[in-house]
Amino acid sequence: MPAIDVAGEFETIQRLLKPLAHPEWARGLADDVAVLPSRPGHDLILTKDAIIEGVHFLPDDPLDTVAQKLLRVNLSDLAAKGAEPFGYLLACHWSERCGWPEREAFVAGLRRDQAIFDIALLGGDTVKTPGPASFSATMMGWAPSSSTVSRGGARPGDLVFVTGTIGDGWLGLQAAQATLTLDPERMDALETAYRTPMPRVEFATVVRGLATASADVSDGLLADARHIAEASKVGVEIDLEVLPLSAAAQAWLDSRVDTQAALELLATGGDDYEIILTVPAGAENVLRREAERRHLRLTRIGRVVEGKGIAVRHLGQAITPTRIGWTHD
Amino acid sequence: MPAIDVAGEFETIQRLLKPLAHPEWARGLADDVAVLPSRPGHDLILTKDAIIEGVHFLPDDPLDTVAQKLLRVNLSDLAAKGAEPFGYLLACHWSERCGWPEREAFVAGLRRDQAIFDIALLGGDTVKTPGPASFSATMMGWAPSSSTVSRGGARPGDLVFVTGTIGDGWLGLQAAQATLTLDPERMDALETAYRTPMPRVEFATVVRGLATASADVSDGLLADARHIAEASKVGVEIDLEVLPLSAAAQAWLDSRVDTQAALELLATGGDDYEIILTVPAGAENVLRREAERRHLRLTRIGRVVEGKGIAVRHLGQAITPTRIGWTHD
Repeated sequence: MPAIDVAGEFETIQRLLKPLAHPEWARGLADDVAVLPSRPGHDLILTKDAIIEGVHFLPDDPLDTVAQKLLRVNLSDLAAKGAEPFGYLLACHWSERCGWPEREAFVAGLRRDQAIFDIALLGGDTVKTPGPASFSATMMGWAPSSSTVSRGGARPGDLVFVTGTIGDGWLGLQAAQATLTLDPERMDALETAYRTPMPRVEFATVVRGLATASADVSDGLLADARHIAEASKVGVEIDLEVLPLSAAAQAWLDSRVDTQAALELLATGGDDYEIILTVPAGAENVLRREAERRHLRLTRIGRVVEGKGIAVRHLGQAITPTRIGWTHD
Repeated sequence: MPAIDVAGEFETIQRLLKPLAHPEWARGLADDVAVLPSRPGHDLILTKDAIIEGVHFLPDDPLDTVAQKLLRVNLSDLAAKGAEPFGYLLACHWSERCGWPEREAFVAGLRRDQAIFDIALLGGDTVKTPGPASFSATMMGWAPSSSTVSRGGARPGDLVFVTGTIGDGWLGLQAAQATLTLDPERMDALETAYRTPMPRVEFATVVRGLATASADVSDGLLADARHIAEASKVGVEIDLEVLPLSAAAQAWLDSRVDTQAALELLATGGDDYEIILTVPAGAENVLRREAERRHLRLTRIGRVVEGKGIAVRHLGQAITPTRIGWTHD
């Protein structure tokens, strides 16, 4: 495309983005394309997510964490499918407010996460928009051929697990908007979970080896469990009382009168970027051991049964959630 | 990400986009990721361009042609590097004005170009934005290992060629904005060149086989020639009087008093999506034959010399263009 954001585009690429480029495959960000050698015996796994100011992030969110969140929501998709990430293409649609300090902050966030997750920039586009800022990334990873886990392989008798804790992203958004009242340190922890969720990249090989079905928890735990139930043509039962909570989410829950309603909110809030997975009952011990080796919290939250859709229980009683999540009802 | 554009996202994916999905690798657009098997002996070539309403396309441009232009500007990048396209990931940031008829029009444009260029949708994201609509695509293609042409291989003595005609995209934008006065059929031809440029996909294998350096003409012929000169550390001489023009561009040129200034405008307007390439002098005949076989216009516009940067001539006289193009000066 013609470089509309003329001087800005050149300097953004040369000064800010080039130091992030993959040493070989990105061709110095100077050649319009990235070139990846084939990796025999492996599949290439791709995902592409976009985030928009005022929709997926707040107008006053610091741009370094916006960049990190962009990478992380995409890394989360790869991790849930058992793929190991290596690089990404990036489109930046800079708004008027994105001057040099903001662009530098954004790039600092990219740099930080490139180091944490061992990924490199492969290419992309940088343009100015008269509207709100938005960004998209195409994240790429490898997995051994035909090993990629789908949502469609859960079988009756399988157990349902989730990594980490649930509800912090949803509570964190409220903390960031100051519509929540908790101790300052709880507020900080929740805001951090909202701004820089931790994709479970280190669990990808475990998912690949053991899961019959998996997804990342982005739409909400119940919604994503239902995606698995639908794709696998089975029923999934979820027990709300075992929902893994952070100390901050537990503090919030303790302040609520209706525990069941509060648990429902946490289980439908979304933005968790944990992995929900199903494994055969016989694999539970191995799975737990692998999680422990990684110091990763892992909770058994339900089971796969004959049938259709999801069934939610609280303290052994079937309940009908008022909503399922950011889903398509 | 949580599906903010709830019902819209679901229906957009299921009803509109799913019929466009790659039969195997897209996983029915139901699994967050695309999975590509490795193709031994081949490199994967990737490019990602974004287009924004009010910047890269006009607010009243029909959305079917916006979709086609999105794919074509990306296809053009692959063609210029000698890669054969097979699929793409797509991010749609729908604005308020993108209701169902607009989304259907957009998808009709995608469908049309998928058939023309034999490509399939692999995945992506669809979200709503409070700002102007924008779209980005990550286009992917194959090339035999290590065959991808860069901008950096031009050598003194090489000849410089360009496919098709130059200046129609730039004139077409003015035709679309009704700031140009020509016969209606000329106006139509130019608008078509602006809205649905024709990437030279069929020339990719020729570029791969013969070119020492190449680029697509998006920033403007002179700017893209200079990119090649800089990357190759050589000089490039361009003769303006041989600039290949469409009948419509010729009619416009005939209406101008200052021919040289008018040619400069055409050579710097950009948005052409032709291929500029350098080949050794000995390859000229083969190159011309390959272009003829494809009924593709091909024009020798200059030569590669020792030195640095570009030199522009008109009727044998060196001239200093008032600007080079949409570039980074």
